Amino acid sequence: MEESYLPFRGIKNDLRGRLKCYKQDWTGGLRAGFRILAPTTYIFFASAIPVISFGEQLERDTGKNIQINWHVLLCVSFVFDCSFVLTDGVLTAVQTLASTALCGIIHSIIGGQPLLILGVAEPTVIMYTFLFNFAKNRPDLGSELFLAWTGWVCVWTAILLFLLAILGACSIINRFTRLAGELFALLIAMLFMQQAMKGLVDEFRIPERVNPKLLEFQPSWRFANGMFALVLSFALLLTALRSRKARSWRYGSGSLRGFIADYGVPLMVLVWTAVSYIPAGTIPKGIPRRLFSPNPWSPGAYENWTVVKDMLKVPVLYIIGAFIPATMIAVLYYFDHSVASQLAQQKEFNLRKPPSFHYDLLLLGFLTIVCGLIGIPPANGVIPQSPMHTKSLATLKHQLLRNRLVATARKCMHKNASLGQVYESMQEAYQQMQTPLIYQETSSLGLKELKESTIQMASNMGNINAPVDGTVFDVDKEIDDLLPVEVKEQRLSNLLQATMVGGCVAAMPFIKKIPTSVLWGYFAFMAIESLAGNQFWERILLLFTAPSRRYKVLEGYHATFVETVPFKTVAAFTIFQTAYLFVCFGITWIPIAGVLFPLMIMLLVPVRQYILPKFFKGAHLQDLDAAEYEESPAVPFNLVTEGELVRNTSFADDGEILDGMITRSRGEIRRMCSPKEITSSTATPSREFKSLQSPRISNKAYSPRVNELRGEQSPGHVGRGTFSPRTNEATPPNLGKSGLD
Amino acid sequence: MEESYLPFRGIKNDLRGRLKCYKQDWTGGLRAGFRILAPTTYIFFASAIPVISFGEQLERDTGKNIQINWHVLLCVSFVFDCSFVLTDGVLTAVQTLASTALCGIIHSIIGGQPLLILGVAEPTVIMYTFLFNFAKNRPDLGSELFLAWTGWVCVWTAILLFLLAILGACSIINRFTRLAGELFALLIAMLFMQQAMKGLVDEFRIPERVNPKLLEFQPSWRFANGMFALVLSFALLLTALRSRKARSWRYGSGSLRGFIADYGVPLMVLVWTAVSYIPAGTIPKGIPRRLFSPNPWSPGAYENWTVVKDMLKVPVLYIIGAFIPATMIAVLYYFDHSVASQLAQQKEFNLRKPPSFHYDLLLLGFLTIVCGLIGIPPANGVIPQSPMHTKSLATLKHQLLRNRLVATARKCMHKNASLGQVYESMQEAYQQMQTPLIYQETSSLGLKELKESTIQMASNMGNINAPVDGTVFDVDKEIDDLLPVEVKEQRLSNLLQATMVGGCVAAMPFIKKIPTSVLWGYFAFMAIESLAGNQFWERILLLFTAPSRRYKVLEGYHATFVETVPFKTVAAFTIFQTAYLFVCFGITWIPIAGVLFPLMIMLLVPVRQYILPKFFKGAHLQDLDAAEYEESPAVPFNLVTEGELVRNTSFADDGEILDGMITRSRGEIRRMCSPKEITSSTATPSREFKSLQSPRISNKAYSPRVNELRGEQSPGHVGRGTFSPRTNEATPPNLGKSGLD
Repeated sequence: MEESYLPFRGIKNDLRGRLKCYKQDWTGGLRAGFRILAPTTYIFFASAIPVISFGEQLERDTGKNIQINWHVLLCVSFVFDCSFVLTDGVLTAVQTLASTALCGIIHSIIGGQPLLILGVAEPTVIMYTFLFNFAKNRPDLGSELFLAWTGWVCVWTAILLFLLAILGACSIINRFTRLAGELFALLIAMLFMQQAMKGLVDEFRIPERVNPKLLEFQPSWRFANGMFALVLSFALLLTALRSRKARSWRYGSGSLRGFIADYGVPLMVLVWTAVSYIPAGTIPKGIPRRLFSPNPWSPGAYENWTVVKDMLKVPVLYIIGAFIPATMIAVLYYFDHSVASQLAQQKEFNLRKPPSFHYDLLLLGFLTIVCGLIGIPPANGVIPQSPMHTKSLATLKHQLLRNRLVATARKCMHKNASLGQVYESMQEAYQQMQTPLIYQETSSLGLKELKESTIQMASNMGNINAPVDGTVFDVDKEIDDLLPVEVKEQRLSNLLQATMVGGCVAAMPFIKKIPTSVLWGYFAFMAIESLAGNQFWERILLLFTAPSRRYKVLEGYHATFVETVPFKTVAAFTIFQTAYLFVCFGITWIPIAGVLFPLMIMLLVPVRQYILPKFFKGAHLQDLDAAEYEESPAVPFNLVTEGELVRNTSFADDGEILDGMITRSRGEIRRMCSPKEITSSTATPSREFKSLQSPRISNKAYSPRVNELRGEQSPGHVGRGTFSPRTNEATPPNLGKSGLD
Repeated sequence: MEESYLPFRGIKNDLRGRLKCYKQDWTGGLRAGFRILAPTTYIFFASAIPVISFGEQLERDTGKNIQINWHVLLCVSFVFDCSFVLTDGVLTAVQTLASTALCGIIHSIIGGQPLLILGVAEPTVIMYTFLFNFAKNRPDLGSELFLAWTGWVCVWTAILLFLLAILGACSIINRFTRLAGELFALLIAMLFMQQAMKGLVDEFRIPERVNPKLLEFQPSWRFANGMFALVLSFALLLTALRSRKARSWRYGSGSLRGFIADYGVPLMVLVWTAVSYIPAGTIPKGIPRRLFSPNPWSPGAYENWTVVKDMLKVPVLYIIGAFIPATMIAVLYYFDHSVASQLAQQKEFNLRKPPSFHYDLLLLGFLTIVCGLIGIPPANGVIPQSPMHTKSLATLKHQLLRNRLVATARKCMHKNASLGQVYESMQEAYQQMQTPLIYQETSSLGLKELKESTIQMASNMGNINAPVDGTVFDVDKEIDDLLPVEVKEQRLSNLLQATMVGGCVAAMPFIKKIPTSVLWGYFAFMAIESLAGNQFWERILLLFTAPSRRYKVLEGYHATFVETVPFKTVAAFTIFQTAYLFVCFGITWIPIAGVLFPLMIMLLVPVRQYILPKFFKGAHLQDLDAAEYEESPAVPFNLVTEGELVRNTSFADDGEILDGMITRSRGEIRRMCSPKEITSSTATPSREFKSLQSPRISNKAYSPRVNELRGEQSPGHVGRGTFSPRTNEATPPNLGKSGLD
């Protein structure tokens, strides 16, 4: 994305890019068939459960408010994705669900980037709380005009968002590096985990706002409830984590394994909810505690829809004053929305369709107005749901491609075709599966790749023209190894999940059966799922890895910095980042000011640009935290070339990379780095290299990067510079690193 | 072991063999230093906890008995390793612990095979119960003369055991194949697991023999107790299983990882016992339930020691009648003791010291008399503790060898030595570490091996005379790869663990603090730990492995049959064995007759010898369940040659085998098969073979067997017979299989 601050330029570019692929966004989704339900369900749960369960948590946390004002209750939480429970029905979980569903549906249809998931998030809730506390004590506003006033706040917010979008403010996202994005993602994982633990501890306590004389709040039953909650939440967490890895299980048929991997998490929520009913006969009804949710069918639940007619009753001074909170909300939305979108479009996903930051921010402004006028809190792009969405679509795309190619190859083999012929038909099938491409070159590259690696495979096996049989050519495995990371980019999954969130409002009586403890387990699960692929997290783990075991990191899939940056530098960088993380985490604990912690993260942009280069070498910084603005001007940034390189890498000598990458867990797509200068990665040099190694090493699967690094050297040079698994601090010869990775 | 039924021949051979290495049994143990504490503690827990905790379980199960007779209570259980709780102190856990300790100490000092662990086991308990029920209703015996009468039973049992030992009955152990041994081991794992589940379920119930009006037995607290028990037992199980794998963790220093792997299980018992005290302030004292054990310091606890003076008061008819139960006990002991000893000395452990079945049975007779005369139930060889003992000593030996060789190699490298020189000094160090050998040839073979693989490694890396540095020669890793499976065979660990069991009697007040639920977790842990390395269990898993994933089994370490026996045959054999297992399991549920289920397992000997060969091909049967008596007579059985072959195999082309074998878990020592005809396994042919394979396959670590099987063919033959990971039903050319494996 180019940095352009010309008015409307960014929006125009975004629209042009997305319109080109708009039709394919739908046809692609529809062609995936019922399989689209897997990512849809996955994201639906990730999207709906926090909204619902934070409502549950909020409802308990805010007992004091109720004693003060039983009429209108606004719940506060300093955790993300909260929802409102207002006892007499001004704002409840119904409204947050409605907002999430409404904004989600609109965004999925006319939004720019359909990978982005919208939801009511924490900053919104905290700001609304603040506004409510302010309004209820003003005689000329009061709780009656509260929603009308927030309507004005939304209007101002929207105007600011429009301005930001039009002026191309999102271009700054280019300066927003991995450093800040991953820190933000990890912070959110921490907040989710904190909420899970807090929820579990609260299971041992008497919730507020209930009659403490009830049977289930006697010490014995409270203790029993707490222990039951421990059992249920850990059971959900462990089984959910296991089920995500079902694809690599050894047991059960392939379809069963696939089903469990796709739907295991919702399934486990069902299973453990069912288990929670097993001791129902012998224990009081309130154990284990279940979701408390308002009845969406009560008459008072919808009085906020007519807020717009009260808006002119708000005194002019307050209408103007609404501008002040609106600036805060606008800054937050601008930040959250763009970062969520960016994290959903990270480079390692190899997306083929263009981003749409400017236009999406414009649309967000529009959605904010709509929500304000009907008196519901607005939604914006959420983390970790958005990146989770992309990851789950990568798995889907992989499966679709794989099934097609396996079928094709099998058919050819039945006809006793040669390996060359098998390749021909696979090439054809692959072409048919391709997205009509924005960047046409990318497509043919993918094919060239396929051919190259098939031929390489063939030359390893003997004659390319000899008939192939199942003995030498293991179809399923080989194809798994050939496929690059690709994402099924479409709009259907987003639309469906948003619709399902809307359906939750109607399904509330069923949702109420879920024990709260299962939800705390789910929160912990979301926190852990979001860690995979986060290089910041991997670096933290690297700090704790014993020096003698660091070679294990090198044996697996790993980022460039592991090989190119001295360990001390990695450690210093990571410790700085961790300290910053804890400062941000600390700020979230400050009641109202805490809402502004994203500003702390935005502060990382100048820190990264102007301060860090003084402490770290440019090349190291580039490997640890690539910033496009630091690229050498001689090598212009070129999406196509990049696409080529990334895909080249995925076909490197050892074909197992992709298998491991996708099947291990949806969350485990790792970055594969590709020095720009390397344009083809034939297996020959690395094999020559291998023969010089010790037998143990030569039998290991190395990351493509390692092989490529060596492929660059002439075999004669290898001798002393040989790579030893232990000496990862010995920097391999620098290959004129490009700014690409 | 030769089959000899000449009187005293077996005992004499045993004594001759063991006396040769008796001194080394002690010096070797002492030289291991404090490290011997790791296997000692491990086995001490495995030995003491069942004894104590079954006592707990028994105490609850036998509430009815107490209502009948409050004076003398004999506890019954149909599970292994039980102990007695007699309310007024005739027989309690104190007596079973004392017997386990006494017999253990004597056996460790003057026993034949010091790897064998002795303990009071289930058959003993069931028989004693039977005897007690018989005696208490006889006016001329009664509960007063019960122990005196059992003294006579022990005398008769001992006489029978003497006869069996003298007549060489243990030679039959040669006919006792993997089929029966592994079935027996799996059955015991099932019984342990059954006990763990039963114990957990009982945590939700009111125990018998207590005042049900106590606060902790109110429904709410009972439920709380049950849930707490679930948490504690699963926490113990999961953390204990994890801690066993600590050696392969990435995090923490090497010594910390080693410490956790060695002492993690007892440590976890401590940790979760401590955790069980966390909610102590808010819950009744009886929650969670803890061990109930008699006070060893009460005056009545030792009145049984003087039983011998009552023995002549027993009527003559009963003295003669005691012969009938004695025959049953003798058969059981003969069976249990020999099988436990055999499982502790399986071939894959590569033991260097000779077995001692006959002499050990003789000693058992002696121990039985001693126990009978002092009125405590006798102990015999126990499963799974005995094989667990050997496995833990294999890890110990590996570490000791490794540390020494690493230190030596490092020293040499500091002097800029060449690889040849490094080898020289490693050879020297290895020689110093060797057990003074019974079979001298084995020693030099171990060294020849070391040399061969070092040279092979060197030739892979370049010039053998060039100076080595840490870059090309990764000391820690390479040495791990070079070391064969060896067991630190000594007497110290057995002596120490038996002494510690004795110490338990004194430490009872502390042991009582362990929650029963932690023990149920420990039972499940023991059951799971005993599965590793059990080929029967691996075959069951193979049955459930999806056909498309069977290649994964081949990629790991696996037994011969996976490649040489068609899957259908493996399935049929395994299903037969599983059905038999369930029949045996069913028999254990029959109250008194259940004690004779080992006879069912002995029945497998003729079944294996005469019936199975009618249904299965000889070669297949040999791979699935090698029986020495089926060996072709042309190839005389020769221990030395076997030693050579097994060790040859462990140094095959791919050095990773040992690393994985030992560090993954103490329990995961896999069998490596070695066709007799192959006398050297140089890497050359297998490498040639590799170059013909697809790149994915060639990068994999194969079992030495695979490489050897191929090494035998000339490269020209490989073409079509190529091994594909999927087609494990395609039998590779049969290499004139020997009867060795």
